[in-house]
Amino acid sequence: MTAAPPPAPAGLLEAFDAYETALMADDLTALDRLFAPGPDTLRGDAHGLLVGHDQISAFRSGRGGAPRRRIVETHVQTIDEDHALVVAITELATGGRGQQTQLWARLPGPDGGTDGGTDGGTGEGGWKVTAAHVAAPAPALDTRIWRVVGAPLVPSPAASGPLAGETIAVKDLYAVAGHPIGAGNPAWLAQAAREPAHAYAVQRLLEAGAQIRGIARTDEFAYSLAGTNAHYGTPPNPRAPHRISGGSTSGSASAVALGDASIGLGTDTGGSIRVPAAYQGLYGIRTTHGAVPATGLLPLAPAYDAVGWLTRDAERLRAVGEVLLPDQPRSDATPLVVVPELMELADPDVAAAIARWRRDHALDVREERWPLSGLGDWLTAFQTHQAWQAWQRHGDWLAGRLDTLGDDVRGRFERAASITADEADAARTTAQAAGARIRELVGDRVLMLPSASSVAPVAQAGADGLQRVRDATMRLTCLAGLGGLPAVSIPLETEDHLPAGVCLLAGPGRDRDLLDLAVGRHF
Amino acid sequence: MTAAPPPAPAGLLEAFDAYETALMADDLTALDRLFAPGPDTLRGDAHGLLVGHDQISAFRSGRGGAPRRRIVETHVQTIDEDHALVVAITELATGGRGQQTQLWARLPGPDGGTDGGTDGGTGEGGWKVTAAHVAAPAPALDTRIWRVVGAPLVPSPAASGPLAGETIAVKDLYAVAGHPIGAGNPAWLAQAAREPAHAYAVQRLLEAGAQIRGIARTDEFAYSLAGTNAHYGTPPNPRAPHRISGGSTSGSASAVALGDASIGLGTDTGGSIRVPAAYQGLYGIRTTHGAVPATGLLPLAPAYDAVGWLTRDAERLRAVGEVLLPDQPRSDATPLVVVPELMELADPDVAAAIARWRRDHALDVREERWPLSGLGDWLTAFQTHQAWQAWQRHGDWLAGRLDTLGDDVRGRFERAASITADEADAARTTAQAAGARIRELVGDRVLMLPSASSVAPVAQAGADGLQRVRDATMRLTCLAGLGGLPAVSIPLETEDHLPAGVCLLAGPGRDRDLLDLAVGRHF
Repeated sequence: MTAAPPPAPAGLLEAFDAYETALMADDLTALDRLFAPGPDTLRGDAHGLLVGHDQISAFRSGRGGAPRRRIVETHVQTIDEDHALVVAITELATGGRGQQTQLWARLPGPDGGTDGGTDGGTGEGGWKVTAAHVAAPAPALDTRIWRVVGAPLVPSPAASGPLAGETIAVKDLYAVAGHPIGAGNPAWLAQAAREPAHAYAVQRLLEAGAQIRGIARTDEFAYSLAGTNAHYGTPPNPRAPHRISGGSTSGSASAVALGDASIGLGTDTGGSIRVPAAYQGLYGIRTTHGAVPATGLLPLAPAYDAVGWLTRDAERLRAVGEVLLPDQPRSDATPLVVVPELMELADPDVAAAIARWRRDHALDVREERWPLSGLGDWLTAFQTHQAWQAWQRHGDWLAGRLDTLGDDVRGRFERAASITADEADAARTTAQAAGARIRELVGDRVLMLPSASSVAPVAQAGADGLQRVRDATMRLTCLAGLGGLPAVSIPLETEDHLPAGVCLLAGPGRDRDLLDLAVGRHF
Repeated sequence: MTAAPPPAPAGLLEAFDAYETALMADDLTALDRLFAPGPDTLRGDAHGLLVGHDQISAFRSGRGGAPRRRIVETHVQTIDEDHALVVAITELATGGRGQQTQLWARLPGPDGGTDGGTDGGTGEGGWKVTAAHVAAPAPALDTRIWRVVGAPLVPSPAASGPLAGETIAVKDLYAVAGHPIGAGNPAWLAQAAREPAHAYAVQRLLEAGAQIRGIARTDEFAYSLAGTNAHYGTPPNPRAPHRISGGSTSGSASAVALGDASIGLGTDTGGSIRVPAAYQGLYGIRTTHGAVPATGLLPLAPAYDAVGWLTRDAERLRAVGEVLLPDQPRSDATPLVVVPELMELADPDVAAAIARWRRDHALDVREERWPLSGLGDWLTAFQTHQAWQAWQRHGDWLAGRLDTLGDDVRGRFERAASITADEADAARTTAQAAGARIRELVGDRVLMLPSASSVAPVAQAGADGLQRVRDATMRLTCLAGLGGLPAVSIPLETEDHLPAGVCLLAGPGRDRDLLDLAVGRHF
């Protein structure tokens, strides 16, 4: 027999019980009082770590109460009469068990002493939680990331192949045989029929030995760069907790960042691969417009929609290209060019990360001034023509159903609906001229520019904040869209250890050169 | 500005680093040394809480190393010079972030003093972890429980209905249109075609407003009561961590116990609903043989296979019955009878739980002695005829593929293959006579007996241990199988707070009476 552990310090178990009672009653005042004040108090769960009493308090007041639970097992490790660790096993009313680990400290009261218990709400002293780690059973699937997941959802028909062992998160715009296309909108999903055949890209990946892991969330009709789907929530950004995922290839990106899939299949019309790649620290490619057939893909704006994918490493990014891309003439000639005016569109932390990366790799980059005074007009033309095409494709269905859309996407479609054919014609003309000009400026070089203007905005940025970020980022991302150009995003890290991306953009048909470049440089 | 937190105590961060190094090297000796000795040391993760240095050490030596990771954020809460809490955010090599919370204590060395650091492996003193709470990103789906999951996988075609809002975990023996049947065996799954239509039970549940959450794991061809699928692992038992789930309706049961589905659709040939219900603290019903059509269900032994389901409460168990069961004459006459010889087949803790339940509910139960000297022969006949039927159904496909089965199920099919037609005839004759005798003994009463002979065995019980449990439990469960009788399992709890089950068994066609009884008694 071993000696019995020391008893719990006086008042601790009463404080623990008071905490549990307050939690179940969602008594925010009592909970605030039972957590230690100050910037060092910690609370962590599967969504990330909150640091400081204020963050924790704000989280609590925003969540509408904790899940119902009961304590089924309690272990106390007494450190001294003023400190103890309490480990409790919880059983949730909805099923399953969790664990809660709390470090408790008895803090002195206003008179410099300590009172015996939970301080009765009268002062600052008493038993307080200084750190809490809360674990609850994971849901069967994270519906922010996935609509359907399988092990696998669709097996490969090939016994072997260059992509054997790879798993794909398919953006919910591509046809997967036997499943409807959901397009990120529940009303669309409800009326969608099961697809009779796989989309071209899906079929090719399966034939190359990859398996489909699941169908991943997208922003509604891919008409956003944020990932903040109003119906299914924002997929988590594991490299930058509490920040948005980026979109519209949002679920695929999160799935790859979490290691739940090795390939995130998506689309990029105006940045929908490059932005989540940058926000989540992934490699991504938007292919030359038309290089990979869009068969079986629900379009947003066919003049600009391009197949793309995301991975955690450059080799895998290229391996997918070997399967999906057509034969292309290869060229080793890849003079790098950077345009200061474009670099200046990025936030300082992102620009600094790119500058550091250039230095670290001792890249031979030529700086050029480009005549970009029309960039604002180009972006407007791109957005106008994209909107016109989107309404042409989806207006009939959406006309009576705009209220099924989240605010941001609805706003875009409402503006799209108001564009006249003359305006669209003018926009197309400007956009086509801009595209030609961009292809001419890029020539046979590789343009280096920020993948997005900023790191991932915090989830609480609000609609106006996200719209500003979108506008700033699209000034960069619209170049590949307008030119129909391939673009690879390579992950960087800012001084604050947040993900960012540098984009390599080349002439049409040079997808494979970009993929080689990403691999060869070991960026 | 607030004051800086106190610095970490001397030697703590070195010990923390040493721990991380040892973890990444899977240096078990160093890890054992860095965890405090004795029975009070704690380590918890999503699989449950381990208590005591020995349990933790055994876990580590069995897992083959920890996932690759790096520390991206560290917070130290210093309690005194010998105690500190370290909260670290980890980033896994496969993606995603986790949290590790550790309470460290500097223990005195053999000389009664403390050394400064990690004790260099020379003694007992130094910095040790006394409690660790480890969280890692949850996988996209728990492949022990599910083959495919959706949100939903299949929506209800009904706008409303008696089961609106309910979600079903479908045992992977039932046809779900568009998906193959997997039967718990990867080789079978690989050659299975997509089903053109839903199974009868699935279709009826959908029409009643329920959604299909996913397709859940089963023991191979439903030929086990353990849930220990050799290919996909044993689904967790949330009410009894580190114990088996019970089977063969294993995944459906775990899904319901975890709250990931509200209805677990399964089958019961010789206990495959009642055993997981008892092991996991759920309500379950095995219906009268033939009462619910088996259309679209992959059979094991059609003479005994019965549709069944599991829920977390009696009301929901009955609500499903209202949808799936045919009209049946109702009777309030439910004299309860208990047979001591059957009660004695249960372990003392299970028998005690049932006795306590009888007392608590002041049940008016008549004790009877039944002529059960032939019970052993009845069980043998049941198992022989069941095996014969199973081989008739699956022998052609399995003949050259027995090596695709896990050991336990393969052993059963190998014995099944050796049964002669004469042996099968004799077994059927005995089984039919036994069934008639059981129906006669039950008459218009309700027999109360243990749902399983024991609580859920620990996962490490081994093949021999599980076989003994199976044999003991089947002496109880075969009665309903032989008689083609409905049986409801009601959850109880042993003195040790482990789930157990009491079974109510009635004459054929009295499913609804049993469901009413379960609800009415508020068991």
